[in-house]
Amino acid sequence: MSAQKQKAVCLTAYPKGLPTAENFDIRTADLPALNSGELLMRTVWMSVDPYMRGRMRPDVKSYIPPFALNEPLDGGAVSEVMVSNNPNFKPGDYVVAFQGGWKDYWVSNGDGLTKADGSIAPLSAYLGVLGMPGLTAWAGLTQILEPKPGETVFVSGAAGAVGSLVCQLAKIKGCKVIASAGSKEKCDWLLKEGGADVALNYRDYKNAGELTRALADAAPGGINCYFENVGGMHLEAALNCIAFGARIALCGMISVYNAKEPEPGPPNLSFLIARSAKMQGFIVSIYLHLASQFAGEVAPLLAQGKIRFRESVYESLEDAPRAFIGLFSGENFGKAVIRVGPDRL
Amino acid sequence: MSAQKQKAVCLTAYPKGLPTAENFDIRTADLPALNSGELLMRTVWMSVDPYMRGRMRPDVKSYIPPFALNEPLDGGAVSEVMVSNNPNFKPGDYVVAFQGGWKDYWVSNGDGLTKADGSIAPLSAYLGVLGMPGLTAWAGLTQILEPKPGETVFVSGAAGAVGSLVCQLAKIKGCKVIASAGSKEKCDWLLKEGGADVALNYRDYKNAGELTRALADAAPGGINCYFENVGGMHLEAALNCIAFGARIALCGMISVYNAKEPEPGPPNLSFLIARSAKMQGFIVSIYLHLASQFAGEVAPLLAQGKIRFRESVYESLEDAPRAFIGLFSGENFGKAVIRVGPDRL
Repeated sequence: MSAQKQKAVCLTAYPKGLPTAENFDIRTADLPALNSGELLMRTVWMSVDPYMRGRMRPDVKSYIPPFALNEPLDGGAVSEVMVSNNPNFKPGDYVVAFQGGWKDYWVSNGDGLTKADGSIAPLSAYLGVLGMPGLTAWAGLTQILEPKPGETVFVSGAAGAVGSLVCQLAKIKGCKVIASAGSKEKCDWLLKEGGADVALNYRDYKNAGELTRALADAAPGGINCYFENVGGMHLEAALNCIAFGARIALCGMISVYNAKEPEPGPPNLSFLIARSAKMQGFIVSIYLHLASQFAGEVAPLLAQGKIRFRESVYESLEDAPRAFIGLFSGENFGKAVIRVGPDRL
Repeated sequence: MSAQKQKAVCLTAYPKGLPTAENFDIRTADLPALNSGELLMRTVWMSVDPYMRGRMRPDVKSYIPPFALNEPLDGGAVSEVMVSNNPNFKPGDYVVAFQGGWKDYWVSNGDGLTKADGSIAPLSAYLGVLGMPGLTAWAGLTQILEPKPGETVFVSGAAGAVGSLVCQLAKIKGCKVIASAGSKEKCDWLLKEGGADVALNYRDYKNAGELTRALADAAPGGINCYFENVGGMHLEAALNCIAFGARIALCGMISVYNAKEPEPGPPNLSFLIARSAKMQGFIVSIYLHLASQFAGEVAPLLAQGKIRFRESVYESLEDAPRAFIGLFSGENFGKAVIRVGPDRL
């Protein structure tokens, strides 16, 4: 029997600044034969996420090792079991894992696979609202921000996979929600379906001063909680508007991920002192032990239609680099997912 | 009977940048006659503290109102009761209050006075290690940093009233203490008496990169806790060296208090994300409810000689502006106190 082929996206050079299509190449190789306990997996849906940009910097110490050049990239995916030498899985099972992304077929040793139940939500949701971005949103909100009913919550990157869930959960918890996103279409959706009371199109504001005035108008009593996905002028404006005792969850700073030179931080950090406020960074993996609590809270809300989500769907593995690059241009609306192969559910 | 005279330091203009002697004037006025419940107080020791610079900015929203021009300044002091129309106090009592500073005599309505027990420590200590700076140090350490034995604690402004207590308490809690101060004399004291395992003279380092290398050498496993009194390159270097799960207590940023233009913040705030670290600002007044717990812990350590403190003593009310200005030049070593009148204890 001939070997199973694997088609995979490789990184050919570490990007300087914004990644481009030239940084990526699609290559084909043979997969090894399966050993005992191993499974042959077919990737159905793969995810691109902003954190992957951090793995494309060989020089920066980070919480996960950098990607190797000219090797298949990796990331979260939903996959179908095709051949199983593992008693815990049978062909036709769908699983979600932090492996399988950026390739069509792969070999698993059975570790880190979670079965995905297509009756709760479409399989792609396990990469978004029910997956790592969902846990990120829920954990930042419930473990760091801890908003009280009636408080004002500001969310940047609010139309993204993480931000849109933060907005809706904060609204369900009785908060006033101020959302920032990068287009009128996104703002309209946030107001209509995404839980926002106020939606600011940040492209309308030239600098932190202008955004500060808009935020101050929207939050006359100040911002109690800020969920930070963006950095830059968003953080400076939010700091200008924080209420006494405010909490800031630092989830991402997508505006600075592609900076060629380090960009200066906000000049008003001392407001954290005068307002006795907290700013706490986090990576989702420190909250993995809360995954079942998260799913127990969010899956029913999703099933009841109380939480909506949007996806930007790309239709082939060849589109994956474009989908990834789109994370930084604001091209995507909601979770960016790539259909690598047919979803038979 | 002729009215009691009050000699007081007034602010004649809001400083631009570093305060100068020209911003201050000493003026004399008549005090009103005492009403029922009121007391005539004689200031013995007064305090100058960095937070007062914030009250000299009429344009910045802060947690306490700005000082009025051409009116007596105010601040913490130890005072002697001279005349009492209040049954709770009798002449000869010594009290500490957030009033009475910057003047020789004043009238109290009896609110906010705490008796000072000269048998525990010299009266001036109630403005330092046993007073507001002491509570600041203890609360930032125990309520925000929560260091565990064996962890590494970095303290900037470590020879100051707050920092020197943080170092000693952290050492008593079993931590490795790295202290930063601005002279060899201060560093020597920190190593000999101030609880520091490593003392860095920050004047030896030209920029954040150089300070980062020194810190990284001193803390090969990273910094678990950072007590921030300074800001600027100290914060940037500390962020470069934080360990996963680190905590930063923002107490002050004395390096930027006198900036004429806002200075950019550190370019490496995103390290808070990658290292799941917390940065929390605070003002001491949110911890006033813990004052007796603080005193119960620190006063015995002081009485047993397990905690040392240094003072820079100025000898007259006329010296108060110079003492205050000295806070920003690094002239003072330990708590700056001004002897306004004789301490008869």
